[in-house]
Amino acid sequence: RLSKKILVVAGDGIGPEIVAEAIKVLNALQADGAIDVTLEDALVGGAAYDAVGNPLPEETLVKARASDAVLLGAVGGPQWESLHISKRPERGLLGLRAELGLFANLRPAVLYPQLAAASTLKPEIVAGLDIMIVRELTGDIYFGQPRGVETLPSGERRGINTMVYTESEVERICRVAFDIAMKRGKKVCSVDKANVLECTEMWREVATKTAAEYPEISLSHMYVDNAAMQLVRAPKQFDVMVTGNIFGDILSDCAAMLTGSIGMLPSASLNEKGQGMYEPIHGSAPDIAGRGVANPLATILSVGMMLRYSLDAPEAADRIDAAVFKVLDQGLRTADIMSEGMRQVGTAEMGDAVVAAL
Amino acid sequence: RLSKKILVVAGDGIGPEIVAEAIKVLNALQADGAIDVTLEDALVGGAAYDAVGNPLPEETLVKARASDAVLLGAVGGPQWESLHISKRPERGLLGLRAELGLFANLRPAVLYPQLAAASTLKPEIVAGLDIMIVRELTGDIYFGQPRGVETLPSGERRGINTMVYTESEVERICRVAFDIAMKRGKKVCSVDKANVLECTEMWREVATKTAAEYPEISLSHMYVDNAAMQLVRAPKQFDVMVTGNIFGDILSDCAAMLTGSIGMLPSASLNEKGQGMYEPIHGSAPDIAGRGVANPLATILSVGMMLRYSLDAPEAADRIDAAVFKVLDQGLRTADIMSEGMRQVGTAEMGDAVVAAL
Ligand SMILES: CC(C)[C@H](C(=O)O)[C@@H](O)C(=O)O
Ligand SMILES: CC(C)[C@H](C(=O)O)[C@@H](O)C(=O)O
Repeated sequence: RLSKKILVVAGDGIGPEIVAEAIKVLNALQADGAIDVTLEDALVGGAAYDAVGNPLPEETLVKARASDAVLLGAVGGPQWESLHISKRPERGLLGLRAELGLFANLRPAVLYPQLAAASTLKPEIVAGLDIMIVRELTGDIYFGQPRGVETLPSGERRGINTMVYTESEVERICRVAFDIAMKRGKKVCSVDKANVLECTEMWREVATKTAAEYPEISLSHMYVDNAAMQLVRAPKQFDVMVTGNIFGDILSDCAAMLTGSIGMLPSASLNEKGQGMYEPIHGSAPDIAGRGVANPLATILSVGMMLRYSLDAPEAADRIDAAVFKVLDQGLRTADIMSEGMRQVGTAEMGDAVVAAL
Repeated sequence: RLSKKILVVAGDGIGPEIVAEAIKVLNALQADGAIDVTLEDALVGGAAYDAVGNPLPEETLVKARASDAVLLGAVGGPQWESLHISKRPERGLLGLRAELGLFANLRPAVLYPQLAAASTLKPEIVAGLDIMIVRELTGDIYFGQPRGVETLPSGERRGINTMVYTESEVERICRVAFDIAMKRGKKVCSVDKANVLECTEMWREVATKTAAEYPEISLSHMYVDNAAMQLVRAPKQFDVMVTGNIFGDILSDCAAMLTGSIGMLPSASLNEKGQGMYEPIHGSAPDIAGRGVANPLATILSVGMMLRYSLDAPEAADRIDAAVFKVLDQGLRTADIMSEGMRQVGTAEMGDAVVAAL
């Protein structure tokens, strides 16, 4: 068996701290022969800008292309917010997505029973919540042309961004959603604004047509405004949701927050070759960076997704998921998920506990 | 004092039933001299399509332009969903917004203490919730050109919609938000996606610049994905939110659902002359139409907003708000807000109770 290559890009803020714990987990699995990986690292985001003046250095891109998977911590921070949009840390992230063709963003919103009390929603509304949001990640208004700010003859400025999808882009992401749903509850809700936007009217048509090849899948359609309502009203009605880049950005964060513990949620971004980038959904949390208190579990669970989706090591992935479940059962909590009667631990102690529980 | 003209467009589904109760309230206020109005009616939406083949007949538009305010019930229903996008009931609504220049959509998300239990969120998270969302309503991707579906040389289709804002459009809606905030908590959160979309980066700049003229206003900025999260996590942090058309569509529905009782929420859509269209935020609810069980309170409260914002009758508006509060105190509930120990009533009985409580 060939050793798989993982590129580690820790990024900014708490990125380095949480990634360090995920590496402990990878090393432990490597040590007991469950996986065979080699790790490299590279710069991205504000850290890369500070070092070489570019949030996505060419070297990082070359290394990423040569890897089976990328593990990302987080990017961004207040010190880079006044930079030109082309130099900001987010460009590193968006550039990696675009350059690697990572069109399929998988964003699970899962409520851990041990953390049910952390939700701002009533327990009966969210108990057992398990939604998989499949967000298209390389199209839509994020990348559409024309874009920018122009000056009109009157002297007034006008800002423009363009929502664009081709049929094949829609079909491709719908297939990902349908394939995932086949291994789950076989229910897919496609989210659009087909009553107003022609682009998403086409999305709805393509989703419907593609679903014809998946007779076991029950496909429904929902307008994005209603989807935002339904996530708050009765989120357990959803199994898999599939939507475009910008609607997915908004809805996946809304769904994540239903769990009350975004420090627990991983994500995967995949291309057609199965290469993927894996990252926690929470941000770089500059306010707590460097203090050793950040929750590393979302990053560790991202390694689990990596083993499942890019490194063909589902048993090792299961072990990670089980280990995280176990440390929660043991009552260990980082500050963000702390509650009465539990034992508060720091980033490293939590990482060590997961390794011990593997 | 000149009599004010109100155009009533009941629309589809439960529209006619709920509007009938709002008219009772207007008539009662007229009878005791609190207001001086004349009512006319006109067709819109599916009802207009069925009658004359057009969801927004020219006659309706002419009458609307000649009115001080429009009271709308609701539009839409499954029987019109397969029509071409240009003939669908929603076009009636979008056409009225565009033709009357109703650029400022005010969407309060208020939790009535009597209905606190209806929320899916924990009481401590939503008790006392009172957010005003100010949504731009005549620009953005709803109306931007180019739009539509084109066929590429390869034979593949490609859908396009365009997000567009000019500086003056942004400034105008920000002023509305700031003016409203001056009468409230003086806090405005402007929502954008300035880290990705240049159009909304310009939005942020214009909001900041305009705020300089309102030294008492505390303006903050938030990315739309984070705003969706924060609405779920800690909605009481918000006083006034201002955002574009599509983000406002999604966030205002999300915020509304936090209250658990969307049957209670009115809205106003205003133009530069103070003309306005007033409507409940809930839809046409075809499943319960014609059964006399729909909740008329959001429509009645929309009349309240009409009296306040377009008809210069704030005392009468206060009386409506107080009357609605009183019927809730009396324990009267329509089916959508029914709970144990309360008395369930139908649409007409609820309308009568509000009239009695005026
Ligand atoms: C940081 C930002 C560019 C990014 C996005 O909008 O895609 C983030 O919100 C996400 O969801 O991964
Ligand atoms: C019916 C639809 C066109 C409309 C919109 O998207 O604006 C509705 O959702 C609203 O918010 O008033």
